Formats: sequence, structure tokens, C-alpha cells
Amino acid sequence: MTDSTSIAARASDIVAGLTLEEKASLTSGADFWSTKAIDHAGVPRIVLTDGPHGVRLQREGSDHLGLADSVPATCFPPAVALGSSFDTELLERVGVALGEEAKAEGVGVLLGPGINIKRSPLCGRNFEYLSEDPIVSGALGAAIVRGLQSQGVGTSLKHFAANNQENDRMRSSSDVDPRPLREIYLRGFQRVVEDEQPWTVMCSYNRLNGVYTSENPWLLNTVLREEWGFDGVVVSDWGAVNERVVGVAAGLDLEMPGGSGRTDAELVAAVKAGTLDEAVLDVAARRNVELALKAQAGADADASYDVDAHHALARDAAARSIVLLKNEGQILPLAAEASVAVIGEFARTPRFQGAGSSLINPTKVDNALDEIERVVGAERVTFAAGFTLANSADDEAAALRAEAVAAAGAAETVVLFLGVPAADESEGFDREHIELPAAQLALLDAVLEANPRTVLVLSNGGVVRLSEFEARIPAILEGWLLGQAGGGATADVLYGVVNPSGRLAETIPLRLEDTPAYLEFPGEFGHVRYGEGLFVGYRWYDARSMAVQYPFGHGLSYTTFEYSGLSLAADAAGITATLTVTNAGERDGREIVQVYTALAGSGVQRAPQELKGFASVALATGESREVSVQLRRDELAYWDTRVDKWVVEGGDYTVAVGASSRDIRLTGTVAVDGDAVRLPLTANSSIGELIADPVAGPMIMQAMAAMFGGAGDAGESDEGMEKMMASFPIGRLASFPGMGVEPEMVEQLLAAANADS
Amino acid sequence: MTDSTSIAARASDIVAGLTLEEKASLTSGADFWSTKAIDHAGVPRIVLTDGPHGVRLQREGSDHLGLADSVPATCFPPAVALGSSFDTELLERVGVALGEEAKAEGVGVLLGPGINIKRSPLCGRNFEYLSEDPIVSGALGAAIVRGLQSQGVGTSLKHFAANNQENDRMRSSSDVDPRPLREIYLRGFQRVVEDEQPWTVMCSYNRLNGVYTSENPWLLNTVLREEWGFDGVVVSDWGAVNERVVGVAAGLDLEMPGGSGRTDAELVAAVKAGTLDEAVLDVAARRNVELALKAQAGADADASYDVDAHHALARDAAARSIVLLKNEGQILPLAAEASVAVIGEFARTPRFQGAGSSLINPTKVDNALDEIERVVGAERVTFAAGFTLANSADDEAAALRAEAVAAAGAAETVVLFLGVPAADESEGFDREHIELPAAQLALLDAVLEANPRTVLVLSNGGVVRLSEFEARIPAILEGWLLGQAGGGATADVLYGVVNPSGRLAETIPLRLEDTPAYLEFPGEFGHVRYGEGLFVGYRWYDARSMAVQYPFGHGLSYTTFEYSGLSLAADAAGITATLTVTNAGERDGREIVQVYTALAGSGVQRAPQELKGFASVALATGESREVSVQLRRDELAYWDTRVDKWVVEGGDYTVAVGASSRDIRLTGTVAVDGDAVRLPLTANSSIGELIADPVAGPMIMQAMAAMFGGAGDAGESDEGMEKMMASFPIGRLASFPGMGVEPEMVEQLLAAANADS
Repeated sequence: MTDSTSIAARASDIVAGLTLEEKASLTSGADFWSTKAIDHAGVPRIVLTDGPHGVRLQREGSDHLGLADSVPATCFPPAVALGSSFDTELLERVGVALGEEAKAEGVGVLLGPGINIKRSPLCGRNFEYLSEDPIVSGALGAAIVRGLQSQGVGTSLKHFAANNQENDRMRSSSDVDPRPLREIYLRGFQRVVEDEQPWTVMCSYNRLNGVYTSENPWLLNTVLREEWGFDGVVVSDWGAVNERVVGVAAGLDLEMPGGSGRTDAELVAAVKAGTLDEAVLDVAARRNVELALKAQAGADADASYDVDAHHALARDAAARSIVLLKNEGQILPLAAEASVAVIGEFARTPRFQGAGSSLINPTKVDNALDEIERVVGAERVTFAAGFTLANSADDEAAALRAEAVAAAGAAETVVLFLGVPAADESEGFDREHIELPAAQLALLDAVLEANPRTVLVLSNGGVVRLSEFEARIPAILEGWLLGQAGGGATADVLYGVVNPSGRLAETIPLRLEDTPAYLEFPGEFGHVRYGEGLFVGYRWYDARSMAVQYPFGHGLSYTTFEYSGLSLAADAAGITATLTVTNAGERDGREIVQVYTALAGSGVQRAPQELKGFASVALATGESREVSVQLRRDELAYWDTRVDKWVVEGGDYTVAVGASSRDIRLTGTVAVDGDAVRLPLTANSSIGELIADPVAGPMIMQAMAAMFGGAGDAGESDEGMEKMMASFPIGRLASFPGMGVEPEMVEQLLAAANADS
Repeated sequence: MTDSTSIAARASDIVAGLTLEEKASLTSGADFWSTKAIDHAGVPRIVLTDGPHGVRLQREGSDHLGLADSVPATCFPPAVALGSSFDTELLERVGVALGEEAKAEGVGVLLGPGINIKRSPLCGRNFEYLSEDPIVSGALGAAIVRGLQSQGVGTSLKHFAANNQENDRMRSSSDVDPRPLREIYLRGFQRVVEDEQPWTVMCSYNRLNGVYTSENPWLLNTVLREEWGFDGVVVSDWGAVNERVVGVAAGLDLEMPGGSGRTDAELVAAVKAGTLDEAVLDVAARRNVELALKAQAGADADASYDVDAHHALARDAAARSIVLLKNEGQILPLAAEASVAVIGEFARTPRFQGAGSSLINPTKVDNALDEIERVVGAERVTFAAGFTLANSADDEAAALRAEAVAAAGAAETVVLFLGVPAADESEGFDREHIELPAAQLALLDAVLEANPRTVLVLSNGGVVRLSEFEARIPAILEGWLLGQAGGGATADVLYGVVNPSGRLAETIPLRLEDTPAYLEFPGEFGHVRYGEGLFVGYRWYDARSMAVQYPFGHGLSYTTFEYSGLSLAADAAGITATLTVTNAGERDGREIVQVYTALAGSGVQRAPQELKGFASVALATGESREVSVQLRRDELAYWDTRVDKWVVEGGDYTVAVGASSRDIRLTGTVAVDGDAVRLPLTANSSIGELIADPVAGPMIMQAMAAMFGGAGDAGESDEGMEKMMASFPIGRLASFPGMGVEPEMVEQLLAAANADS
């Protein structure tokens, strides 16, 4: 019964025995969080519940929007943190733990991972997403799915697709051109689906190029199922169904939440009226039955999980997610013997997750203050809140600042915890700026003045601007939102228990005005144009040669790594980059090896470099290891709009290996065979294209020589005339009667060229 | 017969008497440059010939593409220069002169002006266009049309529309969203058509949002004729017809060039087959007859023009077009008594126009070297070529440089002429960079080293990057391409005969990478996405708070102007800004007063400021004058995509008056009444929109209070919950059965709200 073939067969048998009404009923939920059982047919009820970084199982009888009190669960680091680990093995382990908790709570499908691209730092839900890069999002998202589904629990890959903002999310159309859509916004989804077959994919609220994703047959059937081979259930985001019948016809299998039966009746009526093919409903029902049977097969009434072990994993994962942005004069790691002023309310009251449907009721919560005291002894620690979490009056703020300044001045070192207020980052609305609150910046200024030996620890779901203070701060930890064990993880990194290895999965810009989508976010009147096209994240800053605060892939360590001996090999599977990494420093550590590609002289628009692979490598001090990174051939491809296909362009690819996108250590080139793209020559082919054709070229050159032999020298250089002529569609020459080119001559030429090729 | 009503009536009568074949024949040319006569019906042949900045009438028997030898004509400054004059009165005079020359040559329609927006500095044809701003393009374009048509000669407003590059121009689709299309790319065309009714509009080669402009009924009929009231002929750019029958059906009246009769026969066949309505062909034929009769009425076989007077006008216009970018230490104007080294081949061999269909065979050509010698006496002038126009060998370049350095070192002042090689700027292909040639930069470096008292004079059709040298150059004249009398004009400005008043009609950026369309120019595979949207030119740099080399509207004078006493008044016609400008310096001069608007808190995307009016004001030293600038209400409007209409948003507009976009001298605010936009509330209206509605608001608040009174406090702030809920479409609430919102309740609420409003 756990065999997927037998489950599929059983599901088909079950559906064959159902009434029309029963089949319709299976394609929407029973209530907010569960599907419908049909007992006589053996279809079990299953529970789907919010993720993605914990199990948010709502207690009975709570609110209407599904956002109220939930049962305790481990709050693992949100995706913004996990993305910075660049570590698939770690994320798979987190996935396993999430699966264990889901199983213990009787949950059949955990709603995650969320792998939408961070198009703008303003997206209110960026903390739930992994990266600005599709390979990072895809590889890490796949690891979570792999881990979770290994436990017999389903995932829901979301939010499909091009849902990159919260503003007007239930109506706004993301207007995206084919190449960015394929290469940036869908690429990660494709990888996860093809590699891991998530049990479900969750369609998003928004429209894509004018069509709701919940009723978009191109997206749900052509791309997801036909091209990528998805065989699971497409479930609506909660409340994302616009017209139910249109949705089912387009490939939507399950409307959530359910309960009213109203739209089920619409389906029945549509089938009876002949406007919906019953076979379409059969397929949707069958997929839902299959999902329920799979969940049933994976369920275990006796399952439980080790709360402490999961907390420990959450701590490991958090420590692996912290990014050491700066460490001037090796101020970090701190010595346990030195006195320290811990400043900032976040040290005592951590911000460790974001608001909205992902909000976990944690099993326990560490805070950094306690954890630091545990390391160095309470007697060496002074704490000052520095600011309040709510807005405070000027005099209160000044008093808190004065207390903090006094503490800072009296200690050998300061660890200052600043961050984005919880109210600024949530599902459901976007941020309006990327600034830290004024009171926190005033505190930062005053503390730096009082004690320049200050380590800044940031708590934030989306990037913040550091510009005018950055130069004065000797050490900065980007702590993101670290989950319930983030306090301990922060102490581990501060005191060198863990050597930091996190890397930025998103660029930290100098200013919001520099960001790619700045002028087209969040759009207006129901449309947002993705005008920056392919140039999202580092692709934009690199292509425009812009300075940034910290580049994509950046992150320091307490040790140093050396790169050597790059060798490259290309085959049908892609490119294998092999190199040696050596820990040349005094501490054990972990290096994130990043591999970027470029193709000089490419015939298509490309970013100057694109990440195509990475590896997380643990090395003891003095250790050398050979590392191989596989760059998949599929992921070298661009989306060719002439043929609506992925095409690998042939040529000598530059492969650049480094510790960040702007810290490249080794480069090499390797020849890659291209995919053949054969386009027939037509009357709309330009003279330049004909000249480039091996068959037509000589014919056209001969004709041109006869035609232009003696003219075209009044101010036009020959070269200029050639350039101008090259863009002429051959068929259009007949518009110039003086040339004597008849349409029939063009047709003959084209026929000859096409026949011969 | 010169009365337009009688011409229209006569044209209708004539067409009524023609055969189908004759009517078809009238909708394409007789040959490369003329239309068909039908003698028995009284339809005369007329000649259409290239402009726009001179009459390029081809000699008989020249080449097939129409680019060969032409009769002599005055080469006025190309549009790139005239645009910098910001002077409608001047451009009208140039238009009159062009009309006189056209008439003297028997030309019925001069093909110009070209008013396409300079989207990227790389567009090869930027030298034929006026500005990056639609108000400048529209107001100046209208002035040229007014002048030309006052002489009984027709114009052809071109290239309609969104033809902003040369690359693949005969196939590429300019993919532009509605607001930038209307507000940036069409706005200037609309102004010229509505104000001046050009006799013809020339459709461009490219496609617009996928459809060839030559066969785009939305563009040619809906927008141009129905919305703007155009009643003239739409003529194809030469060779721009794709499918003739489709074009005529879409509103194309005249295919050029003509001669084969092949596509006329297609029209006849289509009418006979019933696929083209003969009435459509009747209208096109009638418009062509009317055009021919108008041209005939304006013709004068005895017309001639004063070559010297036109040369003098060309000199005035050129002087008015030069932009003094920089004048440190008031190095300019030069003293006639000082010795001067004139360096650079362009001083002797001027670059005064661009290549392609606009290339004029000038009546005479001034060069700056001769003109400077005329002012200061040959004995005070040393000339060194400095570089060759063609690429030269390293040793030759070094020798020329050495000679120039010697000359520079020996003179009191250097005037250095640098510029873009002719081969880099032409119709038919785009530029690949904005750099001056390396040999010229090496010369600049060496000359500055030899004599820091160097004035740089630029000759270029598109902007060039100055960045790393700019700080070392004390004075810079942007000379663009100045037409045949540019040499004299340059001497006039250098020596203070003319006090410069030109202003940049396009931003000079610091780097090509900074320009708005950098990543989306020229597109690929037949599409170019205008991803920067509304943010073209200064709108981009302002909105992203970017530094530029010289901002839009910048230009210095040898005197100083003071601004005072701004008063603002709004009425049904728009805003009138009245202020006093005083020439507070020691020289007579001319000031370009620029008026920008902004609307703080606007509900739509806007650039931080937009030029809405300008005036050119001549003031004697010490003179004060009250200046009124009218900002048209129509031009305050944005294009509202919800209702597909121009809408003036009500509010307190900031009106900023200055000498450049970044040198604002006076600001004020004025209240403007908005146009009413009444959108019915629907199930797709968001809760936020309902709350904002005066009728629905209280109803919905009451319902919400009942619904959410006691829930929603698990991690969601009330404010956060409100923000999240505000974006919910009201109809979608029925998807959450627990809320108890039935579709019928929503319908009732909406009906009540809509009825009551």
C-alpha cells in the first residue's frame, strides 16, 4: 500500500465508483485545514497545515482566517536564514525534523517550502523565501522537500508562481516576459518538481500575465504537468480561487479552505451543463484521493518527536545561517574572559520569526542575553535594553540610550542587537522602506561613540540599509530571523563555538533606490511590470557595475580558505568543476564554494555571471579537500523565445569559483556543445541572417554585389550601408521597385536555402 | 481652392468618379519620391522628400535606396541641436525657411519633423530627434510644423510610434505599457497633431506591442484619428509596409515608395474578394487626393529662397543650440586679443550632420577654424589637427598629438574640438558605446597637461561620456551637430558675439551603465521591452536619486539671471506660472525658464518632477521681465489604466521654476481640481477600497467589527491584520466559510453602495 503504483491504481478504482457529486466534493476541503473523507469508498480525511519552518497546527475552534493559536512546535529558522546556509544537507535534516513533527501531529501535508524569488527587499514575506537566485532557491527547496517527504509527509511547494509581493496580492498581475519568467521565477520550481516531486504545489493568489494562477492552464497544465512532469495535487492558496470551474478546468485540483459546498455545486452544475468535461473532474478527484492515500500510508498514530533534539537542530541550523558580514581587526570571536555590554531589547526579547500564516508557537525560546551569560558568566555581562520594541517617548528613549552608553563605556566590548520591528515585516503587506528605526540608529551612533569596539547583531527578515554607519562598525553579524534557538546560535558564533559559514543569498544594497525593482514595485491598478527582466539581485548590480554594501554570496569566517587547482570537464550532464580547498587558518571551519558561469560573446542577453552550483565544505584547520561541483547542463540553458524551448548555447564558458560573487578565486574556461536551433529562413529573415547562413550567404552576397556595385556613396560609408542593409527583411526588398527584386525571386532564394540545409 | 473645406469637397467629388483600380493606385507612390497623378480627374502628382533639417531632394537617376546625391539645400542644425534651443519661435522660423526651400524645389511634403523620444543614448538616429522629454519634443515639433505649413508645404510627423532604436528596426516590437506609451512616447505626437494638424504622419518601421505600426488600427485609427482628430494622410516610412491590405484596413493611406503596382493589385483583389471594404479604400484615396490638392494649392513655380539669409538663419539657430556645460573661472568668452591654439580636425573639417536619409548636400559649409581666424586674426591662431578622422597608425597619432601639444603649450588658450566619428552615428544602426575615440582622449589628456586653459568643443549627435576628464577641463561647449553654419556659430559663442542660451534636452549621464534602458536596449529576437516604464531620461535619474554628469535642462550663460515673485493660478486651461526674471549680469543674454510640476502623495506612479512648460526670454543687461508660462491642464494628466483615459488628479501641485532640472530657483503650490473617476464597486473591489468609499465604508466597518471583534491576536498586530485584510477582494471572503459571508450578502452590500453613490 505504500507503493506509489498501487496507490495510483487504487485511487483510480475509487474514483470510478464515485458519483459526480462525490467527485466534486473531493476537490475542495472539508473545512479550514482538512480534506473530505468518503468513508464508504475508503477515502481518508487528511490535514494540511501551515509551514514552512515549523508545524503550525491550529487548535480547535480558533479564528476565521486561520491565524490564531496553534499547538507548540519547533520554530526552525525561517527561510531567510536557512537560505544563507547554502547547505542542502542541513536543509534536508531540517526537512526530516519537520516531517517528524508533522507526523506526530497527524498532519498529512505541511504547506511549504516557499521558494519565491526575492525581487525587492520590500516584499513583506521575504523572510519566508530563500534567495534572490533560482539555483539557490531550487537546490535548497529541493532539500527540504526531500527531507520532509522521506518521513511520509507531503509538502506544498509554494507560491506558484511569480508571487513576489504582498501588496494587492489577491488581484495584482505579475507581468513578466518569457525569459525572466522561465530563467528566474520558474527555474527553482522546475528543479524542485523534477528532482523531488512534491506531493502538492500551491498556486498563488496573484495573476500571472493577466490570468489568475489558480485558473491558468498554461502554468498548471502546460508547464507544471506536461513540461515538468508533475503528478501531484495543485492546491489553491487559502482563498486563492477566483472562479472555481475555470480553475478546475485549468488544472487546479483542490480548493482550500472548504466547507460551504457552494463551489462544489458549481462544478456539478458545470458538468451537467456540459461546460466542464467530467473527465477533467475525474482526474482532479483521482489526484486528491491519491494524495489522501499517500498521507494515510505515511501516517503513524504513535509518532512523536524529541523536542530537545529538534531544539538542538534548530540551534545548529541557526548558527549555520548567521552571516559574518564584517570582522575588522578580528574583533570576533570574543574572548570569554572579557567583560561585555549586551545592548538592545532584541538580546532579551528576540525577534526570531515573522508574522502571518507561518507564525509558530515555539516549544521554547532561547535569548542571546542568557546564552552569553552562560558562556562568559553573568558577572562579566551588563545588559541595557537601549530601546523599546514599541515606539517610546523622546525622554524615555533618551534615558534608555544614556543607560546603554554608560554600559558600553564600561565594558571591554559591546554586542549591540538591532533589528526591524515585528510590525514592519509580515505576510499580507509589504515594507515601505529598508531603514532601521530612528531610535535604534541614534542608539547605534551613541554606542559607537562610547565604545568603538562594538559588534552589531542584526535581527531582520528583509535586508536593512547600513550605509552611513557601516564604516564605523568593526564587526557585523547578519542574524536574520533565526528561529527559537537563535539566541544560543548567536552566542555560539560570537564566542567561536561555531565558526560562521553563512553567505548572503541576497544582495545587501547601499540604498533602496539602487534596487532593481525600485521603480516598479508594487505596481498600480492591478499590474506590476517586472521591467528589470532577467536582472534580479546580483545580476542587476553586476550588469550595471554598481557598488553594493555587501554582495551576493558574501560571508566571512574565523579561518581562511585557499582555493587551488581548478579543473573543468564538460559532458552531456553539464560541467564538473573540480578544485582543492584548504583551510589555511587556525580554526576548523566551513566554506561555501560558489561556482558562477559566464559566456563571453553570447548571442543573448545574460547577466555578467550566474551562480550555477555551490558546495558546503567542512575543513579542519590545515585540511585540504578536493571538491567537485556539478553544474547541470539544463541550468546552463537560456529560454529561447524563438522556439519556446530551453537552449544551451555552445561556446567557451567561463567558470569562476569563489567565496562570493565578488570574491572570485579561480577561473577557467570549458567548451560546451550547443543545442542545435534550426530556424527556417523566411521572407521575414533579415539580410544579415541570410548572409550568416551557410547556404543562403553566398547567394545573397552575389545578388547584393550586382545590386549595389556602383551606388551608395553619398555620405554613407560602405560599412554603414552594410549595417543598415543587414537589418532589412529580405521580403521587404520588393517594396523598393527600383531594385528589381520581385517576391518570386525571394521565394526561390529561400526555397533553395531551406532545401539545401 | 486654397480653402480647406472646398479642397475636401473637391477631393470627395474626385474620388466618387474614380474606378476601383484608380483609387487603389492613389494609395501608393508613383516612384521613389512622388505620388501618382490622375490627369483626367484632376489629381496632381506631388513630391515628398526627406527632411527633417533640410530639403534632401534627390537628383534624377540616383540609387535604389534613395540615399544618393541630392540638390543643394541649407543644412540647418539637426534636431539634436535645435532641441537644445528650447525656443519655439526660433524653430518656427527654421520651419518657415524649410518651407521656402521645399517650395522652391517643388516639394509638396517635407518628411519631418522627427520627434521620437531619446530612450537610450545609443539610438543611432538620436541626432534626428529633439529630446528625452515629450513636452519639449511636442512643443518644438509643433513649432517646426507651424512654420513649414505656413508656407503651403506639408510636413510628415515621424516616426509614429515608439521607434526608439535602429537595431532590427524593420521587425522589432517595442513592447511598451500603456502609461509610458501614452505619457512619454505618444504625448509629443498628440500635441503636434492636436495643435498643428500636420498634413501627414509617417508610420514607423517597427512593431508596437507586437503589431506593425503600418497595420495597427489601434494606433492609426483609434488613437491618431478618433482620439486626436487627425485628418491627414498616414504615409508609410519608405519600405515600412508589411501586408498592404492589412495596412489600408488599419488606416494606412499611402505606401511609399511605389512603382511596382503589385500591392495596388492586392488591394483591388481584396475589395473584389470582399475582404477589404471599398469604403475604406475610398477614404484613403480621398485623403491622398486632398493632400495632393493642398500641395498643389501651396505650390509656386516661381518660388525661390535667399541662400545667404538661410545660411545666416542656420548660424543663428546653431548659436542658440550650443550648450555651455561648464565655464570655470569665466574662461569664456575668449578675448579676441589673446593667442589661441585651435586643435582638432573637426575645427577644420566640421561634423555638422548625421548619416542616412537626412543627409543634406549643403549650400555652403563654415568651419570653426576660419571663423575664429576671422574674429581674432589669423596671426593669433595656430592650428593642429591633433587626430585624423579615419583611424590612424600609432606613430601618426603620436606625431599629431605632439604637434598639438606644442601648439597648446605656446598659446594663451586652447580651443580643442573633439567628437564622435561620423561612422558611429547614422540612421540604420545604433551606437555601441558613448565613448570618444581613444586617440581623441589621449589628445585631450596631453593638451590639458600642456595647457590647462583649454576649452573643449564637442561635435556629436548623441551624448558622450566625459567622466574622468571632466574635472580637469575648465570650459566645455556641447556643440552637437550644428548644421552648415555651425563653424561660425561656434566662433560667435566662443568670443561672446552670442551669449549662449542652449539647455540640455537630454541628460548627460556619468556612465552608459547608468542609463535607464541600458539592460533592455536593443532587445533581442524581435522584441524590446521598455522595462524602465515612465522613467525615461531625467525621470529615471531623479527617481533613483542618481548623480549625473550634467542634468536635463542644464546650460550656462555669460550673464546671470535672477528669479523672483512666483505666482500661480489654476483654471480650466491649466496652471499659469508667472514670475520675474532679471538679467543681473554684465551682458545681454537669453534665459530658458523651465517649469516642473510634482504632486506629493499622488495615488499613481510619477517621476519626482516633470517638465510641463518653458520659455525663452531675451533680456538686456539689467532688464527685468515678467514671464508667464502656461502649463496645459491636458499635460498635467496621467493615463489612467482603469478607465483608459487621461485623468487629472486633483491636489496641491508643486510648481518648481528653475534654470535646469537640478537648479530650481522658485517653488510654489497651487490647488488643481481633479477629474472625477467613478469606478463602480464590485466583488473584486478590495475591502480597503470599500472602506475608502463614503457609502460602503461605514457598512463594511460595521460588518468587520462584528466579524473580527474578538480574534486575530496571535502574533498579528491589529494594524497588521487591518493591512492584510484591506487587500482582500470583498467577494473572496465567501471562500472562507467560517466567516459566514455569503455571496448574496456581498451582492447586496455592493448594490446598496453603488445605488447610493
